[in-house]
Amino acid sequence: MDVASRIEDALTAAVANAEGVTAPPRVAAAIRHAVFPPGSRIRPRLCLAVAIANGDDDPRSADAAAAALELIHCASLVHDDLPCFDDAAMRRNKPTVHRAFGQREAVLAGDALIVMAFDVIARNVVRQPARSAALLLGLAESVSLPSGIIAGQGWECEPAVDLSAYQRAKTGALFVAATAAGATAAGANPLQWRELGERLGEAYQIADDIRDVAGNAEEVGKPVRRDAALGRPNAVGALGMAAAVERFESLVEGAVQSIPRCTGQFLLRHMIRAESQRLIPEEFLKRAA
Amino acid sequence: MDVASRIEDALTAAVANAEGVTAPPRVAAAIRHAVFPPGSRIRPRLCLAVAIANGDDDPRSADAAAAALELIHCASLVHDDLPCFDDAAMRRNKPTVHRAFGQREAVLAGDALIVMAFDVIARNVVRQPARSAALLLGLAESVSLPSGIIAGQGWECEPAVDLSAYQRAKTGALFVAATAAGATAAGANPLQWRELGERLGEAYQIADDIRDVAGNAEEVGKPVRRDAALGRPNAVGALGMAAAVERFESLVEGAVQSIPRCTGQFLLRHMIRAESQRLIPEEFLKRAA
Repeated sequence: MDVASRIEDALTAAVANAEGVTAPPRVAAAIRHAVFPPGSRIRPRLCLAVAIANGDDDPRSADAAAAALELIHCASLVHDDLPCFDDAAMRRNKPTVHRAFGQREAVLAGDALIVMAFDVIARNVVRQPARSAALLLGLAESVSLPSGIIAGQGWECEPAVDLSAYQRAKTGALFVAATAAGATAAGANPLQWRELGERLGEAYQIADDIRDVAGNAEEVGKPVRRDAALGRPNAVGALGMAAAVERFESLVEGAVQSIPRCTGQFLLRHMIRAESQRLIPEEFLKRAA
Repeated sequence: MDVASRIEDALTAAVANAEGVTAPPRVAAAIRHAVFPPGSRIRPRLCLAVAIANGDDDPRSADAAAAALELIHCASLVHDDLPCFDDAAMRRNKPTVHRAFGQREAVLAGDALIVMAFDVIARNVVRQPARSAALLLGLAESVSLPSGIIAGQGWECEPAVDLSAYQRAKTGALFVAATAAGATAAGANPLQWRELGERLGEAYQIADDIRDVAGNAEEVGKPVRRDAALGRPNAVGALGMAAAVERFESLVEGAVQSIPRCTGQFLLRHMIRAESQRLIPEEFLKRAA
């Protein structure tokens, strides 16, 4: 089965598990709205790519890890879009969860998505205890305090921001979790795969900054020029466009070079270069030049 | 070690794990504020009481389950108190998290507490895979949709409420999780312990309704007469005070009778009768009479 189908099947099963006659219909619909139709699914695709590069000898563990990462990512989008944070109206070219369903539904849908992520991995514990334990603990670390994505979002509440801790946690933590989880699910050493996640997380953050400056809302699927409006740090604002693009390319190349020796090393290098090019479409760069 | 110390030690360790130099200080403080000083800790105490009645042959599993239940309960209080839900100002005789720290901090603290609950149990997976798997899956079921406490809270967002599903999920689910988890952690059959949790959950909901009508804010630790003000169902409003008290007592006695045969059956019966009496202080009943 191809990677995209594996991810959508695992997410479909997880969302279906949360539905049933006793489920409150609005929150159930809000969960579905947050997960489907798919966004870029970049974190689960990265996770599966690393698992496949390492032989993918237990696809059920890899699929669970991939789905869990995406469920957490969707939860973070739903909560970060709330009025008390970004007050965002659009996401993935449709209304955000709180605009479509209400704030209460958005709070609860995000909460449920966090639980669902751990549930998906827990289903493999009896069959595959050691790998599942590492996946659960790695996921918790990448989400919670002191250094996960919640910590990253938490730095937005501070009067004095530790910018490096903020960016590493806010975006980087889930990319590191993705490469580490892919390795763990396939029985490889996750520590050797952290650098790939760190570099790709940083590259992704810069690509996001470039899209915010050079894209339009329809292309990007959400409002643009938000960093300037909300006074958030942006690499293009700090470095200028040319230097930001150069930094992005250098990070991607560093990521590619960091890939440890594994059976699928060649294909993974190729895939990461190709995927990275899609993050910043040519026309954005022409327009910004 | 006594039960109270076991619970506080496990929670202290979990909260300390979330702190560190990379943690945003305000969210970290909000998490601590949500967990300490202790509330009644009724769910973790129930969990440990059931584990002890079943021999408690793996106290680390029981302590993890107890701490996880309380972390989830604290998360639910923080999110339920938000302005979009109850907009509560006081909880456990001090300001609620969003009043003390802000809405953003409250959203993030609640999110982190959910993750911390699963993390606490996941730390035992390698040592004790089968019991930990059952604890993780049982916890997820009691929290998420379709029938956990998030589903219960979700019924408050619906124009037409399924009252029975609402109450079973909103309060009952975490009581069932507590008795089932106590049994699981001690290697007993959790299914035999669900009825105890169901009856105690229903009794606790009625006691809460009675306290809302007959207590004052200082005694209860939070504002009273909220059910009437928010148009929420209340057993005293529906049945009258005398019938509500009678229903409470009958549920407690049914709970006591439902306790399965186990080494600590006698002590557990005694403990549940004694704890239940503390839920509705004599003076409330005199005042209401």
